[in-house]
Amino acid sequence: MTLVIDNISELVTNDPALGDGPLGVVTNASVVIDGDTVVAVGPAGAVADERLDAGGRCVLPGFVDSHTHLVFAGDRAEEFTRRMAGEPYDGGGIRVTTDATRNAGRAVLRDSLQQRLVEVHRAGTTTVEVKTGYGLSVDSEAELASLAAEATTEATFLGAHLLPSEYQGRADEYVELVCGPMLDAVRSDVRWIDVFCETGAFDADQSRAVLTAGRAAGLGLRLHANQLGHGPGVQLGVEMGCASVDHCTYLSDDDIEALAASETVATFLPATDFSTRQPYPDARRAIDAGVRVAMASNCNPGSSYTTSLSFCIAMAVRDMGMTIDEAIAAVTTGGAAALGRSDVGRIIAGGPAHLTILDAPSRHHLAYRPGVPLIWRTLGAGFRLPPAGDQT
Amino acid sequence: MTLVIDNISELVTNDPALGDGPLGVVTNASVVIDGDTVVAVGPAGAVADERLDAGGRCVLPGFVDSHTHLVFAGDRAEEFTRRMAGEPYDGGGIRVTTDATRNAGRAVLRDSLQQRLVEVHRAGTTTVEVKTGYGLSVDSEAELASLAAEATTEATFLGAHLLPSEYQGRADEYVELVCGPMLDAVRSDVRWIDVFCETGAFDADQSRAVLTAGRAAGLGLRLHANQLGHGPGVQLGVEMGCASVDHCTYLSDDDIEALAASETVATFLPATDFSTRQPYPDARRAIDAGVRVAMASNCNPGSSYTTSLSFCIAMAVRDMGMTIDEAIAAVTTGGAAALGRSDVGRIIAGGPAHLTILDAPSRHHLAYRPGVPLIWRTLGAGFRLPPAGDQT
Repeated sequence: MTLVIDNISELVTNDPALGDGPLGVVTNASVVIDGDTVVAVGPAGAVADERLDAGGRCVLPGFVDSHTHLVFAGDRAEEFTRRMAGEPYDGGGIRVTTDATRNAGRAVLRDSLQQRLVEVHRAGTTTVEVKTGYGLSVDSEAELASLAAEATTEATFLGAHLLPSEYQGRADEYVELVCGPMLDAVRSDVRWIDVFCETGAFDADQSRAVLTAGRAAGLGLRLHANQLGHGPGVQLGVEMGCASVDHCTYLSDDDIEALAASETVATFLPATDFSTRQPYPDARRAIDAGVRVAMASNCNPGSSYTTSLSFCIAMAVRDMGMTIDEAIAAVTTGGAAALGRSDVGRIIAGGPAHLTILDAPSRHHLAYRPGVPLIWRTLGAGFRLPPAGDQT
Repeated sequence: MTLVIDNISELVTNDPALGDGPLGVVTNASVVIDGDTVVAVGPAGAVADERLDAGGRCVLPGFVDSHTHLVFAGDRAEEFTRRMAGEPYDGGGIRVTTDATRNAGRAVLRDSLQQRLVEVHRAGTTTVEVKTGYGLSVDSEAELASLAAEATTEATFLGAHLLPSEYQGRADEYVELVCGPMLDAVRSDVRWIDVFCETGAFDADQSRAVLTAGRAAGLGLRLHANQLGHGPGVQLGVEMGCASVDHCTYLSDDDIEALAASETVATFLPATDFSTRQPYPDARRAIDAGVRVAMASNCNPGSSYTTSLSFCIAMAVRDMGMTIDEAIAAVTTGGAAALGRSDVGRIIAGGPAHLTILDAPSRHHLAYRPGVPLIWRTLGAGFRLPPAGDQT
C-alpha cells in the first residue's frame, strides 16, 4: 500500500541534488511512501494507493534530537523558580532527580518515558537519543539503560553524569565503578557512552578514563563540554574522536580550531542556556570557522525541560547568529551527524519515511512564529511510541 | 446542567480572598460551572451533573490578550528572514500588509481571522482585543472594524497605524481623515481608539488629535508608544488617560514616574522585541516603581507573529525580570485592566467560565517548559469562534 503526500508548498529534502540550496528545497512537491520507506520525491502530481493532502503546507525531514535525558522521575519546577529568582545553576540539582529516579520503580519510569516520547513526536522529532544518568548506581543505571534501549537504538550510558552523594570525596573510586561494573551492566543496551566534563562534575582525566573504557567496550563516544565555562572538554572530545561534543556554550579560539579540523560535531543546546540564564553560544563564529554543528533539546528536568526543537530554532535565529536554514539543518542533518547517521534527517528515495508537516506554508515560520505549536503532523518514527490508546 | 472540574492540582483564581498569595492559589481544588458561569470555587469534592477530571493538572483563568492585530491578509515571512539577516525594523512593512489586506476581500479576511481565533483559543486565551489598522482608507478600515466587531467586543480602531502611501507628505490631511470620515465610519463597531505614536509613524500632536477625536466619539483610549526608542508617547498616554500604553520597550525615569502616578497600564509585548531584535523592556523596574503592568501577544504579521502568551511568560521570566507569578498576572488580571475589565482574568463565583487547563501540575511549568504546547484545554471564550466543523 503506497501513500502520496501531495499539495506540499515547500519540501525540505536536505539533498541538494533534489532541490534548491543546501536544504534541497522543492516547491509544489509530492512525496510517495511505501510502508516505512520513501519511494519517490518530486513535483506535485504523483499517484499512489492513498493520498494525504498537505493543504499547501511545508514538509521537512523529521527532526533528529541527538541529546536528551528522557528517563527520569519527578520534576524540578521549584528549583527552576528559585533560579529565575536569582539562584545560580551549578548542576547540583541532578542529585534531586537521581533520588526520585532511584525510588520510582520501573513501571513509573517507563510510563513517564513513553508519555515524553509522545510529546517528542508531537514536537516533530522522529529520531531521538536517550541518556541514562539519573541512576548513578550499577542497578539503577542498568534499569535506565534497558528502558532507553526499549525506546530507541540511540541509547547512551551516562553513568558519569555527576558524582552521587554516597561517593563524595571518592570521585576516582566512582569513575572505576563507571568504567567497570556499571559499564559491564549496561553495555549490551547502549550504543554510546557520555561524560559530563565540567568543573563540579568530572575533570579531563576522569572523562578520558570513562571514554577510553567505553571505546574498549565497543561504544561510540560523546561528551558534555563547556556548558558553564571554558574548560578542557571540547579539546578532549576532539582528541578522543567523539561523534559530538555537546553544549559548547563557551568556545575558545583553540576549541574552534580543534573542532574545525575534526569530524566531531559541536552540538548546541540553547534551551539550556535559556533556562539557566547562560549566554547563548556564538554559532555564527563556529559555522564560519567550518565547524559542523547540530542543535538538540537536552530535554531534562533540571536545566532544559523542553522537547521543542522549534523553540531551539527560534532562539538560534534570534540570538545565536544562525540563519533559519542553518538552524533547520542543525536539527536534521546536524543531529544525524552527531549520531553518526546518514539515513535520517533527509527525505530521499530509499530513506525512512520520517516526515514533519508544519501548519505553515514555509519553513521560515519555525522562527517567524515563535511559541506557536506549528507541527501539524509527524509521520514515522525511529523510536518506539506507546499504542495510541495509551497516549494521554 | 452543571459541570464540576475536579482533581485540579493547583487552581489560580486571581482572588487573594480565595487562596494563597496575590494569585489566590488553591491546591487540590474543584470549580463548578453552570452554563457559561462559574458558580463555585473551592476544595476538591464538589458535585454537579457532569464531571471533568483534570487529572492533577493546573487550572488558570483564560488569558486576556489585550493587544492583537488579527485582521489582515498575507504574511511577511520574507521580511522577517531579511531582518534576521540584519535588516533593521522600522515598521514600514505595515504598508505591505495594507496592500494585501485591501485586496483580499471580506470572505478571505473573515476566514483567516476565524482560523487565527481558533489558534488564539488553543493558546489558552479567552478574551482578545482586535485592532483595525491594515486598511488605512475609509472603506477598508470600516470593513476591518466590522470584522473585528463580529469577533469580539474589544474591537479597536487603529486608522492611525501608519501613513498610507497615497498620503505621503500629507500627514496632517490623513490625520483629519482619521479623525473625521474614518472615525465616523467605524465608531459604531469599536470600543477603543489607538494610535502608533513613534518616529516614522505619528508624532505627539497628531496622536493627541486622534485620541481627542476618539474620546469625543465615546471611545476608550489606548496607544502604541516607545517601541523603537524613547519618545513622548508614554507621557501623552498618561496625560490623555489612556487605559493602556503598549510596547514600553524604552521607559525613561519620567515615563515610569508618570505611569506609577496614573491608572494607565503599561502593556509589554516581548514577542515583538524578540522578533525585531529589540532589547526587552525592564519590567522589574516598572513593577518596583508601582506601575500596573500587562503583557500581550501583539499578534501581527510583521513584528510579532505569535498568539502564544505562554511564550511571552517564558520570555518575561527569563529576560524581563518578572517572576512567574507576575508574568501570569500580567496576562490575566493585567490584560483585563488594560481593557478596563474586572470580570475577566479571574476564576470567581459569578464570573464567566473562562478557564485554561495546563498539561502540567503547576503554573510554573509555563516558564519551566518553554516552547512546549502546555495548553490541555481552553474552556469558554469572550470572543466568537467558528463552528467546530470549520476549524482546520
